[in-house]
Amino acid sequence: MSAELLSTQPYKGARDFYPEDMELRNWFLGKVRDVLTLSAYDEYNAPMLESLDIYVAKSGEELAKKQTYNFEDRGGRKVAIRPEMTPSVARLVAARLQQLNMPLRWYSIPNLYRNEQPQRGRLREFWQINADIFGCNSYEADLEIIRVAIDMLLCFGADESMFVVRINNRRFFNDVIAKICDMSGEDARLVSKVIDRREKVTREAYVASLVELGLTDEKIAKLDALYTMSVDEATAICPESEGAQELQRLFEDLRALDLEKYCIFDFGIIRGLDYYTGTVFEVFDKHPENTRAMFGGGRYDNLVGLFAKNAQLPGVGFGCGDVTLQNFLECHGLIPEEYSKKIKVLITRFDDVPFVNYSKIANELRANGIMCTTYIGTKKFGKQIDYASKEHFSHVVIMGGTELENGEVKIKDLDAHEETTVKLGDIVEYFNR
Amino acid sequence: MSAELLSTQPYKGARDFYPEDMELRNWFLGKVRDVLTLSAYDEYNAPMLESLDIYVAKSGEELAKKQTYNFEDRGGRKVAIRPEMTPSVARLVAARLQQLNMPLRWYSIPNLYRNEQPQRGRLREFWQINADIFGCNSYEADLEIIRVAIDMLLCFGADESMFVVRINNRRFFNDVIAKICDMSGEDARLVSKVIDRREKVTREAYVASLVELGLTDEKIAKLDALYTMSVDEATAICPESEGAQELQRLFEDLRALDLEKYCIFDFGIIRGLDYYTGTVFEVFDKHPENTRAMFGGGRYDNLVGLFAKNAQLPGVGFGCGDVTLQNFLECHGLIPEEYSKKIKVLITRFDDVPFVNYSKIANELRANGIMCTTYIGTKKFGKQIDYASKEHFSHVVIMGGTELENGEVKIKDLDAHEETTVKLGDIVEYFNR
Repeated sequence: MSAELLSTQPYKGARDFYPEDMELRNWFLGKVRDVLTLSAYDEYNAPMLESLDIYVAKSGEELAKKQTYNFEDRGGRKVAIRPEMTPSVARLVAARLQQLNMPLRWYSIPNLYRNEQPQRGRLREFWQINADIFGCNSYEADLEIIRVAIDMLLCFGADESMFVVRINNRRFFNDVIAKICDMSGEDARLVSKVIDRREKVTREAYVASLVELGLTDEKIAKLDALYTMSVDEATAICPESEGAQELQRLFEDLRALDLEKYCIFDFGIIRGLDYYTGTVFEVFDKHPENTRAMFGGGRYDNLVGLFAKNAQLPGVGFGCGDVTLQNFLECHGLIPEEYSKKIKVLITRFDDVPFVNYSKIANELRANGIMCTTYIGTKKFGKQIDYASKEHFSHVVIMGGTELENGEVKIKDLDAHEETTVKLGDIVEYFNR
Repeated sequence: MSAELLSTQPYKGARDFYPEDMELRNWFLGKVRDVLTLSAYDEYNAPMLESLDIYVAKSGEELAKKQTYNFEDRGGRKVAIRPEMTPSVARLVAARLQQLNMPLRWYSIPNLYRNEQPQRGRLREFWQINADIFGCNSYEADLEIIRVAIDMLLCFGADESMFVVRINNRRFFNDVIAKICDMSGEDARLVSKVIDRREKVTREAYVASLVELGLTDEKIAKLDALYTMSVDEATAICPESEGAQELQRLFEDLRALDLEKYCIFDFGIIRGLDYYTGTVFEVFDKHPENTRAMFGGGRYDNLVGLFAKNAQLPGVGFGCGDVTLQNFLECHGLIPEEYSKKIKVLITRFDDVPFVNYSKIANELRANGIMCTTYIGTKKFGKQIDYASKEHFSHVVIMGGTELENGEVKIKDLDAHEETTVKLGDIVEYFNR
């Protein structure tokens, strides 16, 4: 044993969860689970450690090694702590491609590690809600995933003043650029790459890059106009585009299902340029001090290609971090002071009554589904009551020698400040009133 | 992207959890959570990564480095993936020693990693149920922890024919050895070390080691006799020992609470020689093909010493792996075929009805707490029914053009093989019957 004291701090960028922190997280992730389960999503999970290869194959060696915690194990395997869930779920689905019944609705809430500098809303260790539909390439799956993302916020009492889902379509994005610029293939792709970086560079640099690719001022103005258009205006530019038709249908159904108030078309939503292939969306916090993308998702088409030969499996899904969601709930005052009013009983004790008499009462209450424990230790009665109120017990049961003789107990309701005398045989009934 | 296909296998010694695996694990860990919550235990958690130091301080550098996955992060910190939860919880408690209200009842079910060869019941990645009482050094805490361990098995329908809790006391162990051998201090400690290894060496080697320490045949016979004694016989050897008195009181109360049938005194239960300081216990599977220690725990006295100066905090607790528990449940047939009968509704679809009509029915059912989803995709009706039965839906809702016109749907109960025609407005009522 070392004589020097060790630090009590958690690892940099990771969090300790004391009971009150855990209760909060269990509360909000529990509500998310309820929403997903109600929509018939099945939970899955996979190991924290994965072969580094699967991240290298998806993101390239440099990025994979930079973003993950990775090392070589004793068997010489290169392993990484998972920084995201997509490669793991792709592996699981690919391994049973023939047996699984498509479409799958799957979710997971894994803990993930990113090897980067911690900042507000981005920690090194976090949990991520992943929900996906696999094996369905029609727009109804996109509609459903967006509906689930909205339900996930509505279940906390959020409304349209607090968030908005910004939606685009990558096929439409490609088609409308090709049409406006009158380009195709590699030329159009280069323009897309510049547009993808529009918000990350100055206006001058942006225009210069487009001019360099041969775009006139008129074309640049037409592109600019897309950012303020409604979905009807934008899709009218190239109605023949399948992406435009998907967008149209999606918004029509969002309207019919009374979800349009939460959604807006936004040509600026692109997400990973090489990954997404259809509908893409991002959920934005509308809080004036906190306007930002909370989470997002979209459609991708080649989930399992790295694992299975000649297999194409479409998917659509989203990933939402626990820190982001918690920030949103805190920011908008959506966390109640008490998650649920519950009965929690402490049986206090006196020296002149054998401990087993208290244990028996506790056993009877628990057998009837009432959360209950006995005070253990030797502190005086007043201290036991202090303990009960600090630890949020709702009731204390009091039985000294006199009460034991009379076959009764006193029950103190700590919230109502009421004391009742109850026969030993009627304690369960008291709590089940 | 690599042209070579990646392996779909999980990391060696770790498991994938497909929905059916996850449902099983959620079921049994959910029942464990219920038992712990009912006894007023609070859940906590801590990061997967911890400073390697805390394991080195507890177990020594060689063992800590050998048993953990450890590496240096970019900031030069030596970190380890947690192989156990005790050092983490000690850190959390030490950091708030003044603010926390003792006694604490805490539990956690973390995923842990051990860097060792996988074998039956021992994997590299596993989950461990940790339950502890901190800040109470009286025997009632020991009694409670053993009661909770028993309840954790009883809640699955296990009975005394399936498991037994073998109990000893480390203070009694030391005192009775000292008394029988008429030794004290270092001499007695050396004898203890030999006795600790009794089952790991041959009888000849065991006796030879004791003779070498000066023990006569008579004394060795007296030690041997302890292994078949009842708690009353054993404690009668040194009734003045505080450990003996604790054992007596513990068994008295186990008897009074009708728990003695699950428990037996066993002088062979020692556990980590340097760690435990009072009551120790191990829960044994009684299955003839599988007789072995499933999990155990006990009392320890210096949990926070590594983190806080001059602080002594007593604790008592146990740790039980998910693999061990699952093996026990499987072995004794304690896993039901269906965890809970639930309503799960698939709304099938036809081309001549707009998709939003189906979505609206699904929304209404979900708003009333009924698990429900729409079929998405384009397969024919027969295939949709196949999908429903393979994915364990209990009901399908059928609405073609004719039903839509009549404002009704057909509901097929897949278990009862019954079909009912129901008015559109009465669907929720149908399921809430």
